[in-house]
Amino acid sequence: MSERVVIAVDAMGGDFAPDVVLNGCALALESNKDLEIALCGPSDIVEPFSSAHERCIAYPASEVIAMGEHPAHAVRRKKDSSIVVGCRLVKEGAAHGFFSAGSTGACLAAATLVIGRCKGISRPMLATIVPSPSGDVLLCDVGANADCKPAYLVQFAQMAVTYAQAIMHIEDPRVALLNIGSEDAKGSSFAQECFAALKDAVPQFVGNAEPDDVLSAKYDVFVTDGWTGNICLKTVEGTAKTLFKAVKSAMLASTKGKIGGLLLKGDLKKLAASLSADTHGGAPLLGVNGACIVGHGSSNETAIKNGILATASLVSNEVVATIAASAARMKAEADGEAEA
Amino acid sequence: MSERVVIAVDAMGGDFAPDVVLNGCALALESNKDLEIALCGPSDIVEPFSSAHERCIAYPASEVIAMGEHPAHAVRRKKDSSIVVGCRLVKEGAAHGFFSAGSTGACLAAATLVIGRCKGISRPMLATIVPSPSGDVLLCDVGANADCKPAYLVQFAQMAVTYAQAIMHIEDPRVALLNIGSEDAKGSSFAQECFAALKDAVPQFVGNAEPDDVLSAKYDVFVTDGWTGNICLKTVEGTAKTLFKAVKSAMLASTKGKIGGLLLKGDLKKLAASLSADTHGGAPLLGVNGACIVGHGSSNETAIKNGILATASLVSNEVVATIAASAARMKAEADGEAEA
Repeated sequence: MSERVVIAVDAMGGDFAPDVVLNGCALALESNKDLEIALCGPSDIVEPFSSAHERCIAYPASEVIAMGEHPAHAVRRKKDSSIVVGCRLVKEGAAHGFFSAGSTGACLAAATLVIGRCKGISRPMLATIVPSPSGDVLLCDVGANADCKPAYLVQFAQMAVTYAQAIMHIEDPRVALLNIGSEDAKGSSFAQECFAALKDAVPQFVGNAEPDDVLSAKYDVFVTDGWTGNICLKTVEGTAKTLFKAVKSAMLASTKGKIGGLLLKGDLKKLAASLSADTHGGAPLLGVNGACIVGHGSSNETAIKNGILATASLVSNEVVATIAASAARMKAEADGEAEA
Repeated sequence: MSERVVIAVDAMGGDFAPDVVLNGCALALESNKDLEIALCGPSDIVEPFSSAHERCIAYPASEVIAMGEHPAHAVRRKKDSSIVVGCRLVKEGAAHGFFSAGSTGACLAAATLVIGRCKGISRPMLATIVPSPSGDVLLCDVGANADCKPAYLVQFAQMAVTYAQAIMHIEDPRVALLNIGSEDAKGSSFAQECFAALKDAVPQFVGNAEPDDVLSAKYDVFVTDGWTGNICLKTVEGTAKTLFKAVKSAMLASTKGKIGGLLLKGDLKKLAASLSADTHGGAPLLGVNGACIVGHGSSNETAIKNGILATASLVSNEVVATIAASAARMKAEADGEAEA
C-alpha cells in the first residue's frame, strides 16, 4: 500500500470506549504510515487525541448510539452520533472506510441508510472469519438478514468469493452451503432452493457441508442466511467459552492439576489466541458502497488496531470496488435478459 | 420400576453393530431385572444371543436399512428390516418401546409410519440432552422437522415439559426459545411468530435465549425448529471435538506439555465424560405412540446400555401416555372451540 487511506473510526464504539479505541487508533497509526484516521466522537475526546497525533483529524459528534437502542430508529434520530457521522464521511468521500466496535445493528443500519448499497446488491451482509486451530473459514451472513431469499445467498457467496480472493489470498475458494446434511438433496425446503440457486450461479460452490466442518478448514467459505449463521457463530463462541472455563477449573481442582496447568499455560494461551476474534479485528459488512468493518463489543486495543488496519486493507485491495463492479455487471446482464 | 418392561432393540443399528449392540443388551439386562429385550435382526445373530440370555426373545428380521438410504423409501420397501420389525412390535403391543442406534431418519420414518403419531400431535420431534459441564439442557427439535410452523413449536415445548418433569425430575422447567437475541422482539419473522405462540400457550415459557446459553444451564429446555436445533447441536459437537483435539496436540507439542498433560489427564477425562452423549444413550422421539429412542451411530456398549435403559424409563414413567393424554385433551378443547 503506498497511497493514503482515510478510515473513519467511531471513538465511542465498544465496551471499553473511548480509552481502548484511542489506544487502538494510536497503534494502527504507528503500524501503517499511509493510514489517516478520521476520529468521530465527542469533541472533548477526539480533539485532544487528534492534536496529539499526526494523521488524525477530529470530527466532533455530539451523540452516542447505545448497545440496546433500536438500530434503525437510533440511526434516523441521532444524526449527530459517532456512527452516523462516520458513515457520512464515507458517503461524502472524506473517508474511504468506516470502523466501529459499537452496536452491530446500528452500524448495519447506518451503513445501509447513510452510505447506501452497491447497485445491484439486494442485501448487504455481515461476514466473519471463524478462527479455528485448523485454519480460517469465512462464514456469512452472520446476522445482517434474519430472513433471506435464495437469491440473497447467491450474492452473499459472490461477495464472499471476492473477499476470500482479495483478503484471504485464496485464488479459488471452496464455497459450501451450511446444511444439516452433506448430500445434495438435504435440508429444509429453503436450503434445497439455495442449493439449486448456488449450483447454478456460483462456480466456486462445492455443495452442502455440516456445521462440524465450520472448524475443520475443509472449506474456505460457508454461506447461509443471517439467522442460521448467527446461531452457528454464537454456538461456536459459547461452546469454546464453556470448554475453556471447564478446562481452567479442572486445572484449579487439585495441586496436580495446578502444576499441569502451569506447564501447559503457554500452549493453551497460544490455542486461545488462535481462537480469538481479536486477531481479525471484526466482521466486514459487504454490499455497501464503502469499506465497513464492525468489531466485537469486547474488543481490546489490539482488536481495535487490527480492525482499523483490516478496514484499510479492504480499501487498498479494492474489495468494495470489485464487488460493486461485478454486481453492476450482473444487474446489467439481468436487465438485458429481461428486455430481450 | 417393578413391572416387566419389554424393549425392542435393533441389533443392526450403529457403526459397530451387531457386536456392540449385543454387549449393550447384555449390560442392560444385567442392570435392570424387570427389563425384557425383543431383539430384532438376522436370525443367525439374534437367536444365539437370545438362547444364551434370559429375558431376551429373538425376532428374526432378514433386512437391514443402511445409514445412507432414503429413510421413507427404505421403510416402505424393507418391511422385514430390523427397524421396521422393532416398530411393528411396539405397534402390536408385543413391546413397550423401541431403541436403535441406526439411521435417525429411518427410525423417525418407521416410528411415524408404523407406530403412528399420538392423536392431536402434528409432528413428532427429536429431543436431545446437550451434555454440558454446567448441567443438562434439553434441546428440541434437533432434526425431525427441518420445516416447521409456530404451532409445531408449541407442541414441542409441551412435550419437552412432560419429558423434563418425568425424566429430568424438574418440576417447573424453564423453557426458552432459541433465538439470535434475547429481547422479546428479536429474530426472524418465524422466530417472532413462535415467540408469540409460545407466550400464549406454554406457561413454562420464559422468553428468548441465545445459543451461548445452551451450555450455561440457565434454562432447562430450548425449543426451536428441527433445522436450527440440528445446526446448533452439530456446532456444539464439532466445536467440542475440534477443541479437545487442539488441547491434546498442545499437550504433545513439547516435553513440558506432555508432563502437564499427564498430570491433567484424569480431570480432562472427567470433563470429556461430562460432555459425552454416551451418558444419555440417545435422543427420545416424542409425539409417537410408543417410547422410542435413537442412539448415536458411534455408540459404544455403555451408550447402548444407557439407551435401552432410558427407553425403559420412558415407559415406566409413562411419558408417552402423559403426552398422548394432554394432546388428546387439547385437541378436544380445540375441536370444542371450533364447534362453538
